[in-house]
Amino acid sequence: MTPQRKARLLATLNRRQPDLTLIAEQVHKSRNIAALVRNCDAVGIARMHIVAPKEGYRDYSGTALGSDRWVRRHVHEDVEHAVATARGQGMKVYAAHFSDRARDYREVDYRIPCALLMGAEKQGISTRAAELADEHVSIPMMGMVSSFNVSTAAGIILVEAQHQRLQAGFYDQPRLPRDEIRRTLFEWGQR
Amino acid sequence: MTPQRKARLLATLNRRQPDLTLIAEQVHKSRNIAALVRNCDAVGIARMHIVAPKEGYRDYSGTALGSDRWVRRHVHEDVEHAVATARGQGMKVYAAHFSDRARDYREVDYRIPCALLMGAEKQGISTRAAELADEHVSIPMMGMVSSFNVSTAAGIILVEAQHQRLQAGFYDQPRLPRDEIRRTLFEWGQR
Ligand SMILES: C[S@@+](CC[C@H](N)C(=O)[O-])C[C@H]1O[C@@H](n2cnc3c(N)ncnc32)[C@H](O)[C@@H]1O
Ligand SMILES: C[S@@+](CC[C@H](N)C(=O)[O-])C[C@H]1O[C@@H](n2cnc3c(N)ncnc32)[C@H](O)[C@@H]1O
Repeated sequence: MTPQRKARLLATLNRRQPDLTLIAEQVHKSRNIAALVRNCDAVGIARMHIVAPKEGYRDYSGTALGSDRWVRRHVHEDVEHAVATARGQGMKVYAAHFSDRARDYREVDYRIPCALLMGAEKQGISTRAAELADEHVSIPMMGMVSSFNVSTAAGIILVEAQHQRLQAGFYDQPRLPRDEIRRTLFEWGQR
Repeated sequence: MTPQRKARLLATLNRRQPDLTLIAEQVHKSRNIAALVRNCDAVGIARMHIVAPKEGYRDYSGTALGSDRWVRRHVHEDVEHAVATARGQGMKVYAAHFSDRARDYREVDYRIPCALLMGAEKQGISTRAAELADEHVSIPMMGMVSSFNVSTAAGIILVEAQHQRLQAGFYDQPRLPRDEIRRTLFEWGQR
């Protein structure tokens, strides 16, 4: 590993946000999962959660541009388990979902520990997942079509989270535990 | 056409933004074009511009969810022509592009007549297009990968434009010429 490469990996690890994550509920298309992984990497998410579609989870390849090497994926059998895991880490759960209780996605606080829950391409967020979520957030739609592609919607909301965290200085100093940075740097160095 | 349907079409036309557009420079994958069309519809763009890839322009199908029925596409042979068309309509051109002169995408004004220029999946914005643009705008990247998928990046920037225009009341009253609304309503009613 060249010193430049090492410095780059370390700089990335120093910007990782352990208290921000994404949960993808039954997203079926591998290219959508790949794009979600890429979005997670871009805002500093170190681990994401995938609720496996009923037909089973196939790993994917595609448009992640290698970002899947930098984001850990945890696969869960159902959304209860994924949400319980995030909650166990002290996170609030925001579902990207239109409902009576949905708030504009810019109005909620992403500086607190939180998980963004995204729904499937066709069915969207399940009734159960909507119940489990602490808040619902939505992006205004001004046209004929009633939703964005799931990875576009995730990108829009995650970049708002990134913005709030940039303003708050969350990317200015390491937020992962020191030993996790050391271990991950070693692991990444092998790739 | 039911009265409800007619009201819905009219409400959409009353939110269309004639002084906001998107130019896609040689975006090759039809599913990316489809996702761009969907994003345009969502923020009220009535017409978008496509610079045909050198290999020729194939129309696409896919993830637009029918939004291609609501957004007019103009195909251009080269980026000069597409930019000249937008300029001829009094628009400023913002290229989504990392460069020395790039500004944070949230810092520019999207309430003025403007066109957002997006680059190809691999090559990004061409040198020529970067020269032609009035400003370069970029979205901060905090991870290992250096770009978002083109449709995700477009969604992020267009929703910022939408936000500025919502704040300014641009969706509160019709902005398309009356006769264009009438003609388009008639045309959409046939579909
Ligand atoms: C293609 S959409 C699903 C559409 C589905 N037919 C529905 O009615 O929910 C896939 C996912 O993207 C997210 N999404 C898309 N557009 C959104 C918006 N405008 N606001 C919030 N989330 C959105 C949601 O998580 C949604 O479940
Ligand atoms: C996949 S990117 C192209 C990457 C290309 N390798 C490059 O270096 O430009 C496709 C297009 O999405 C837009 N884009 C992606 N990420 C962006 C970002 N962070 N800021 C601004 N535009 C971005 C740009 O228009 C870019 O040309």
